[in-house]
Amino acid sequence: MSEIRTKVCIIGGGIAGLKAASDLTSYGIEVVLLEARDRLGGRIFTDRSGLAPYDMGASWFHDTLENPLFNLSRRKSHYLHYNDDEPMILTSSGPVSRNDKLPQVLKEMLRFNESRFFESLDAPDRSLQNMAYEYIHQQRDLLTDTQVRLVPELVRDLELWHGIAWQSMSAKYAIIDHQGRDSYMGSGYDTIIADLEDTIPKRSVKLQEIVTGIERSHAGVRVHTSSGVVQADYVVVTVPQSVLSLAETETGGIKWFPSLPKAITDALSQMSFGSLGKVVLEFSEAFWPSEDKFLCLADPDKATVQKLIPVPWEWPVNFFNMTLIYGVPTLVALLQSPVTNYVEQHPTKAWALLQPMVEQIAQASGSTATPPTKVLVSDWSVNPFSRGSYSAAEPGNDPTDIIVQLSEGLNRVRFAGEHTIGEGAGCVHGAWVSGQREARHILVREGLVEVSDDD
Amino acid sequence: MSEIRTKVCIIGGGIAGLKAASDLTSYGIEVVLLEARDRLGGRIFTDRSGLAPYDMGASWFHDTLENPLFNLSRRKSHYLHYNDDEPMILTSSGPVSRNDKLPQVLKEMLRFNESRFFESLDAPDRSLQNMAYEYIHQQRDLLTDTQVRLVPELVRDLELWHGIAWQSMSAKYAIIDHQGRDSYMGSGYDTIIADLEDTIPKRSVKLQEIVTGIERSHAGVRVHTSSGVVQADYVVVTVPQSVLSLAETETGGIKWFPSLPKAITDALSQMSFGSLGKVVLEFSEAFWPSEDKFLCLADPDKATVQKLIPVPWEWPVNFFNMTLIYGVPTLVALLQSPVTNYVEQHPTKAWALLQPMVEQIAQASGSTATPPTKVLVSDWSVNPFSRGSYSAAEPGNDPTDIIVQLSEGLNRVRFAGEHTIGEGAGCVHGAWVSGQREARHILVREGLVEVSDDD
Repeated sequence: MSEIRTKVCIIGGGIAGLKAASDLTSYGIEVVLLEARDRLGGRIFTDRSGLAPYDMGASWFHDTLENPLFNLSRRKSHYLHYNDDEPMILTSSGPVSRNDKLPQVLKEMLRFNESRFFESLDAPDRSLQNMAYEYIHQQRDLLTDTQVRLVPELVRDLELWHGIAWQSMSAKYAIIDHQGRDSYMGSGYDTIIADLEDTIPKRSVKLQEIVTGIERSHAGVRVHTSSGVVQADYVVVTVPQSVLSLAETETGGIKWFPSLPKAITDALSQMSFGSLGKVVLEFSEAFWPSEDKFLCLADPDKATVQKLIPVPWEWPVNFFNMTLIYGVPTLVALLQSPVTNYVEQHPTKAWALLQPMVEQIAQASGSTATPPTKVLVSDWSVNPFSRGSYSAAEPGNDPTDIIVQLSEGLNRVRFAGEHTIGEGAGCVHGAWVSGQREARHILVREGLVEVSDDD
Repeated sequence: MSEIRTKVCIIGGGIAGLKAASDLTSYGIEVVLLEARDRLGGRIFTDRSGLAPYDMGASWFHDTLENPLFNLSRRKSHYLHYNDDEPMILTSSGPVSRNDKLPQVLKEMLRFNESRFFESLDAPDRSLQNMAYEYIHQQRDLLTDTQVRLVPELVRDLELWHGIAWQSMSAKYAIIDHQGRDSYMGSGYDTIIADLEDTIPKRSVKLQEIVTGIERSHAGVRVHTSSGVVQADYVVVTVPQSVLSLAETETGGIKWFPSLPKAITDALSQMSFGSLGKVVLEFSEAFWPSEDKFLCLADPDKATVQKLIPVPWEWPVNFFNMTLIYGVPTLVALLQSPVTNYVEQHPTKAWALLQPMVEQIAQASGSTATPPTKVLVSDWSVNPFSRGSYSAAEPGNDPTDIIVQLSEGLNRVRFAGEHTIGEGAGCVHGAWVSGQREARHILVREGLVEVSDDD
């Protein structure tokens, strides 16, 4: 690549970088987009090697009442599917009875948690696990033995949203305030990546270009890669928070000159990163009930002894039923850190870990589980360019500061991605809007669009 | 009664008045409590003429995470029961399938409504009905035909919380923010009334004393009744908002001298009053499924033509299953204005109105409905001392102003009741806390308790 001169250098070909590149291109601004992988999409990746398109990363539209990307897909008649029924809940002894009213108690537990922080913004944070046990302690006389045993395990469903274990999860920021239903992107999220790619000149996109350093001055920026330098007026940095958080001396870390201000490195140290992982299990036939999803709870006794190697029923797992979406005999399991890391390092061990749960799901419809005919395992935690899934808050973390710092940027150095925005944080549409935001910032500065009240 | 002299005159022997009387008595303050009915309890009334105690008025503890009265009952080992499972939803054609995902769409509709007022406090209010149709219009392409038809009918479940029809219901204030689960008071709410009554000297309680006028001055108050006058240093007025709102010249209206300030009469005109009614149906045996409740939706076609006399399937009705609480073959139907008013005026017509719905409920378990062996109908809307159930907001109403005005009071004239308090508004515990609040106000002024930061 040696040395290239362009107007805007975009680092990262995920949806934030692609949206920024697309918007800038549409105004005639020249861009160079550097992507470390040999493909675009970042943490969007649709595996099309099986019976249906399987999104190994992002797969839902969230907050669909307020999601501009969802509204685009809606107009394009993408295949959208709501798989948002209450899950069938199972333990190692079989399905939980509706009469146990676990969801009702869960709802109260979440309200208990919310009240604490609503009443005082300064209430000290704690882990989701501690919160759950405190609730059980306070309400013990009002709960059945089954509720006491299982509702703490049920709240761990949140592990499969944030990709982290409840011991490591901030109670304050665990609860997600959904703005509308979640819609499964049945057409595959890669269709949106492909549509964006079509709006950017082929020559602007450089794959397998790993950024090693960023020099900045008032005049412009110089982005160093393994094969050369890009000289630009602006850079939009969309690498994941996990990469941005690496020390300059760590493998994969970006060397900044001058170094990143302390306000940014401090804010980065105040936020964590999850590892939501997926295992796609294709079978010869669907031997499970006709339910949207199956939430297998951890065994409360097993859950207290954590081993280096995860064992079945030690962690909650959420299985999504692809039969109702695509008519294929496939279950997709969602995992959390540290299980994701283990399974992604040892993908051949995935089935052994999940098999006892799948057998219980089969029994719930009076069937017997057969071994999978195909197993696909995500690689987010082992891939050096993602290092996990998306930002997540540990107890005491503050998600706001990093968003404030990165959305403000550093003059000609701009930041975009799911970790740089409040509305849609951790989501595809948040990343997309952040790319739009940074393109607009540059367009305003270049005098190509008018400043509006929103800027 | 001729003329009595006392320290505090309390008007109304509902739970607010009783709690105020009890707290004042415990500090040795002399009280006279005037109750218009021939019984205490007000809008708490437990009918014990049937197979189980049936609360014809208040019957749940709400907001149980923050409900001090619930915590007392909890310590007294009252029989508490959570009947808070999702209802079985039925139409005139039978039960609605879970696959129709009506609750998921309802949740999004409520979020749609909430967002509007969250984004702008000044967003103009509208009826719950208008909101529902606006949501359906916006989301039409994402909904099934069944969802389009039935989710607006499902949101009308709120009619059976507020006791008013959705056309007359404020969308802004329709959604209830539950602080914890709702617990059914299985022991009968009259046990709490009886416990409070035991703490007040018998001679202090005057039944069938209808208050006709209140004179106030800086020196004290004179309360006129049909049979005499009570001269007191303070009066605590706990009559329902519906009675307080009557013009002085209307039958049952209280004559104020001097007249109530405009700030209070204006605030009263800014708030409405619902008519939640109940019909208890005892049968020879329980022929319905083992569910907590059965929500019968109005027929969307019927619902558009409102007649003077309500017909079956024109209004939503919620049937609560007493079998799961008491083991008795009883359903309790909840009704709203104007159905409540009709049924309470014509209690013998109640069964004919409800029969087709009960027949559908019976069919859902493959049974046939038999006629009830006993029918009990509430009388809240026809009783001159309640004139409905509790405060409710119509579109454009402001629930805050009346609470601010009445909780501030008029020097020696104090107000208590469900309509005078924000936390627990419309609920038993709100009324109870408001009685506690006014007793405390007087005790502080009399130097019997210290002022604390909470005052």
